[in-house]
Amino acid sequence: MSKKLTSRAEDYSKWYNELVVKADMAENSAVRGCMVIKPYGYAIWEKMQAELDKMFKETGHQNAYFPLFVPKSLFEAEEKNAEGFAKECAVVTHYRLQNDPDRPGKLRVDPDAKLEEELVVRPTSEAIIWNTYRNWIQSYRDLPILINQWCNVVRWEMRTRLFLRTAEFLWQEGHTAHATKAEALVEAKLMNNVYATFAENFMAIPVIQGVKTESERFAGAEETFCIEALMQDGKALQAGTSHFLGQNFAKAFDVKFANKEGKQDYVWATSWGVSTRLMGALIMTHSDDHGLVLPPSLAPNQVVIVPIYRTDEEFAAVSEVANGILKDLRSKGVTVKFDDRDTQRPGAKFAQHELQGVPLRVAIGPKDLQNGTVELARRDTLTKSVVALDDLTNTVENLLKEIQDSLFKKASDFRDSHITEVNSFEEFKDVLEKKTGFISAHWDGTNESEEKIKELTKATIRCIPLEMKEEEGVCVFSGAPSKGRVLFAKAY
Amino acid sequence: MSKKLTSRAEDYSKWYNELVVKADMAENSAVRGCMVIKPYGYAIWEKMQAELDKMFKETGHQNAYFPLFVPKSLFEAEEKNAEGFAKECAVVTHYRLQNDPDRPGKLRVDPDAKLEEELVVRPTSEAIIWNTYRNWIQSYRDLPILINQWCNVVRWEMRTRLFLRTAEFLWQEGHTAHATKAEALVEAKLMNNVYATFAENFMAIPVIQGVKTESERFAGAEETFCIEALMQDGKALQAGTSHFLGQNFAKAFDVKFANKEGKQDYVWATSWGVSTRLMGALIMTHSDDHGLVLPPSLAPNQVVIVPIYRTDEEFAAVSEVANGILKDLRSKGVTVKFDDRDTQRPGAKFAQHELQGVPLRVAIGPKDLQNGTVELARRDTLTKSVVALDDLTNTVENLLKEIQDSLFKKASDFRDSHITEVNSFEEFKDVLEKKTGFISAHWDGTNESEEKIKELTKATIRCIPLEMKEEEGVCVFSGAPSKGRVLFAKAY
Repeated sequence: MSKKLTSRAEDYSKWYNELVVKADMAENSAVRGCMVIKPYGYAIWEKMQAELDKMFKETGHQNAYFPLFVPKSLFEAEEKNAEGFAKECAVVTHYRLQNDPDRPGKLRVDPDAKLEEELVVRPTSEAIIWNTYRNWIQSYRDLPILINQWCNVVRWEMRTRLFLRTAEFLWQEGHTAHATKAEALVEAKLMNNVYATFAENFMAIPVIQGVKTESERFAGAEETFCIEALMQDGKALQAGTSHFLGQNFAKAFDVKFANKEGKQDYVWATSWGVSTRLMGALIMTHSDDHGLVLPPSLAPNQVVIVPIYRTDEEFAAVSEVANGILKDLRSKGVTVKFDDRDTQRPGAKFAQHELQGVPLRVAIGPKDLQNGTVELARRDTLTKSVVALDDLTNTVENLLKEIQDSLFKKASDFRDSHITEVNSFEEFKDVLEKKTGFISAHWDGTNESEEKIKELTKATIRCIPLEMKEEEGVCVFSGAPSKGRVLFAKAY
Repeated sequence: MSKKLTSRAEDYSKWYNELVVKADMAENSAVRGCMVIKPYGYAIWEKMQAELDKMFKETGHQNAYFPLFVPKSLFEAEEKNAEGFAKECAVVTHYRLQNDPDRPGKLRVDPDAKLEEELVVRPTSEAIIWNTYRNWIQSYRDLPILINQWCNVVRWEMRTRLFLRTAEFLWQEGHTAHATKAEALVEAKLMNNVYATFAENFMAIPVIQGVKTESERFAGAEETFCIEALMQDGKALQAGTSHFLGQNFAKAFDVKFANKEGKQDYVWATSWGVSTRLMGALIMTHSDDHGLVLPPSLAPNQVVIVPIYRTDEEFAAVSEVANGILKDLRSKGVTVKFDDRDTQRPGAKFAQHELQGVPLRVAIGPKDLQNGTVELARRDTLTKSVVALDDLTNTVENLLKEIQDSLFKKASDFRDSHITEVNSFEEFKDVLEKKTGFISAHWDGTNESEEKIKELTKATIRCIPLEMKEEEGVCVFSGAPSKGRVLFAKAY
């Protein structure tokens, strides 16, 4: 904790890696690419979960749980999906260990315990779920099915980074089944909109809603909706996706239903998910060179109270006031902690809470007791003020709201000032390298131009914005005609 | 839903299996031994999770998340633990699939993607967690560590049953680290007590707290505390365990700390867990030949309102009253659902809610509107009454409390009447076969007698009760001296 954080200007990537560890959010584990999410990080994830879960339930979804393992024969049934994930699958081949005859006290895989069929550790659950839905759906009366699951998934990524890309991660995956194409499309858009609302209102992260190009779509989807955010270093981050899967999985798993006219038809599907990657988005949107900055809605502790004292008597007097504040703030629904550890000095506590992004810090010392005041420090602006004890609850309530709004505004201003319209490929490359951020440019709609641009610049089409306005133009790369601008960026 | 449930008297095991499926709680999946937890079952599990999580946090614990995989070298480090779980481990050996050259469109494990070290899918997480704790603990100031994790675990059981024994299950596992033996023992007992309180107050399941004999202990523990419940068929079910692990894992993973005197010592450990097995305990404690019976605290819907109508006008009038009831009950914190589906007739709805154990059912028809009444049906007693609309909220609140208490009392009476003191082995066998339940008998404390009794009768020592009273006696099997009675039973 004592060693200073690398600054963002110095090395953004290093700053991120250090911050995640120093703020006690997560660390690498003994398993390649898998992380340990530490209590402080997990408490933030729990807040995200609780809010999302509420939003899912309010939109009619229920939670369920499906197996961790996907038998290989099911995994390969939807070919595009299988092809998309085959290269990064953890595969269970045996179900027993035995004593190693050559190394006393050690174990080895029991060669006699080979599974008849290998099991894939789920990288996503469409296959196992649609194989299950087949038995749940006979008629239109059984539809829609609106199910979500919170779970772990495994994708054997070669290059991993805490939260942003890990071999195992936590997520939620919604899997819905519908009688009509129109209804499934409405659902896919609705859930993308839920994600956008959550990101903006709860995480204070401005996002752009759009659809992915064919090459960036989820493997097996007919349309992928997404929310795209912009990090402080000018790189985009895909923060959530919602897929319209058409009848692909229904066909692969033979899931038919009798419609109202009594005719058999394949079921229409969506799936949608957000993951612990959102933790990375949170960090890279708001934090600064002093450490984490948390929107109050996500802070495990919105307020922390630090006592300043020399003697036991002073501590007792300060504690009494602190406990009164605790009670008042809690009655208003504010989460607050009294940091009365006697193993740390106030300065060390201040540093820790700053590093961990506690939105408001209250310090109370003997002088404050005399004056009927406290010192209130605001994490996002790093400003301090002296507040009358009588006004504290009110001030805290207002400030928490103000901080939440201010973080969103700050991030929105940054994002908005980093969407640059360009009209030539030279300009495209120039902005991408010097200014960074989203580049709004005409594109001819072909995979070839998209691939070539990616090859030459490392920028990808983040999305075709839902709110794209029609505008005649020519592709920034090929010069072929285009009907609107799409958003390019380098991305996480 | 239409086919009648097998009665408990006819075939208890069959009754259970049918009930789990018909009440829409869970079903078997395409993966051997792994279950799908359906939304209705999962909603009950969520209620358990929420209450337990609250209790864990109130006792100072925080949640975190550790990797799904345990490298084999870590897994084998604590030898007893490894030996205990080696025979039922799912093992990941490869990290990629590839196209099968012999079968177009199919995949096979890529032989070039063999892991250097095999990964065990966690059957429990002591190994991965204590390997992590080593880096977190230097001094007594870093202790205690009080962490819990909610996750899935895999134990490759050969004979599985929904909820009771599945290859994959959901659970929580607490893992704590302490500076002293005494503190760790207090923690292990405290959490066992939390489980007992939860089982009794929330699930309405009476339990006996005790310690396991050496042969029944968790692999790697020095003492295993447990809560034991009694199912309706007279078999016991271990509903939760809390382990005092001594310094075994600290030694295996070299986790030392500097104590207050500056001396290095190994850290003391506990671990404790309950799982989706509790769902099985819930079902087998309260349910009847008509289906599930749920204590109100665990019911996804405590009350369901069924409208009775012929015309649209009648439906509108009934709905207005129903919506008023919804509002009133919700304002009192009662979870209530208005079952206004037009695809089902009232009779079918009644049958479904009975099967799914909704504690209270309100039916409202045109006659009720005239009389200012509703019909109220109570699931646990299957009794009906006519209640004045004005009294409904009050009546429901009181009845929910009464049902919760009554279920606990009924289960307690059954359990208490099925603890039988026996003083000879003949009597032991006789009671075990004819009366069933717990048998309270003297035991000489040897593994030999315990094993022999198990071999001859299939009864195991469920626990040495914490509240065992000292009593001179002789072992029911060997005749050797004994200082108190322990509890035997056949068990799930």
